[in-house]
Amino acid sequence: MWLQKEFQLKSRSRGFHLITGEIVENLPELSNIDCGLLHLLLQHTSASLTINENADPTVRQDFESHFNQFVPENAPYYLHDYEGSDDMPAHIKSSYLGVSLHIPITRGRLNLGTWQGVYLGEHRNRGGARRVVATINGE
Amino acid sequence: MWLQKEFQLKSRSRGFHLITGEIVENLPELSNIDCGLLHLLLQHTSASLTINENADPTVRQDFESHFNQFVPENAPYYLHDYEGSDDMPAHIKSSYLGVSLHIPITRGRLNLGTWQGVYLGEHRNRGGARRVVATINGE
Amino acid sequence: MWLQKEFQLKSRSRGFHLITGEIVENLPELSNIDCGLLHLLLQHTSASLTINENADPTVRQDFESHFNQFVPENAPYYLHDYEGSDDMPAHIKSSYLGVSLHIPITRGRLNLGTWQGVYLGEHRNRGGARRVVATINGE
Repeated sequence: MWLQKEFQLKSRSRGFHLITGEIVENLPELSNIDCGLLHLLLQHTSASLTINENADPTVRQDFESHFNQFVPENAPYYLHDYEGSDDMPAHIKSSYLGVSLHIPITRGRLNLGTWQGVYLGEHRNRGGARRVVATINGE
Repeated sequence: MWLQKEFQLKSRSRGFHLITGEIVENLPELSNIDCGLLHLLLQHTSASLTINENADPTVRQDFESHFNQFVPENAPYYLHDYEGSDDMPAHIKSSYLGVSLHIPITRGRLNLGTWQGVYLGEHRNRGGARRVVATINGE
Repeated sequence: MWLQKEFQLKSRSRGFHLITGEIVENLPELSNIDCGLLHLLLQHTSASLTINENADPTVRQDFESHFNQFVPENAPYYLHDYEGSDDMPAHIKSSYLGVSLHIPITRGRLNLGTWQGVYLGEHRNRGGARRVVATINGE
């Protein structure tokens, strides 16, 4: 069985956000799959998807602090600066973390570890609603 | 054909470890697939899976040195510090490298490049045995 | 439907290069897939594949500048140095960005966002032609 579906995530502020719940709400079809895989593609170049701890929100705050420190704004060698000082670092963060995820589906549910959740990395100051292409494949 | 299987990797010390052999040993079913894909999900948030050089072990040592330098312990801006100084850097390293890999299966074998192997990045001082969900899909 | 195909990318200079067009030219079979996924594996450990902005070439230049700054050559702790000063940083960049991508296929075409393209990160000074294993799965 193949199923493809496009949807928008709610607009979020700059930083890292737990979105596992919003993804599952958009994909009730997951419950029809006994064994398979979910693929998510974020159709943007200044935001990212990653898997990390779903519990303590300070992990997400520390992600934002780390990436701001190690992917600085206004680096002297940036040439691509006409979309604002948050833009070029957002492109780099997006590629560090990636825009694509695969999660196993087992007996109708995402088979993540106990402490794992899906993060949206919103790397622009005002990124707006982000689009996702979800592809479900399984049996 | 779909097959899903969960197994534990042997416990390893902090650092980067070549685990291609251990993965193949856990998946004798690979030999039944003529054309397909293997997906691996590490169900943790402080370890990682990546593909890199399978020959000289100093590459893995240099990975550990690089990531310790550029994802420091005890950064002044970390808020999430109650699980030890190795914990927050471990979360960040896990997302830099990812916890999920796809490898093509061709005529019953993993179709990696000559110099490619699968690394487990163990980013905790004492991470213990790590769990993997393997999904094989092919024909 | 499953299809697997290996091909070589044209040799490119060190830096980041937009290769979406070259990939599509090598895969006319994409037009037979209504709903599916394309997987690409670069069979190397000193180059990478990532998705980022397909428009302004200065984004690719800034990627090269950023990664040269934050994955330095000749770091004092590198042990793996006998293949040249560009080699160990190339391995690290390859794992930061990854060698594997999945892109949804929708009605015969890659379903990337408007501003997304596939980048080859060539991290060696003279990397030569790079090999790709493409796996198409869909219906």
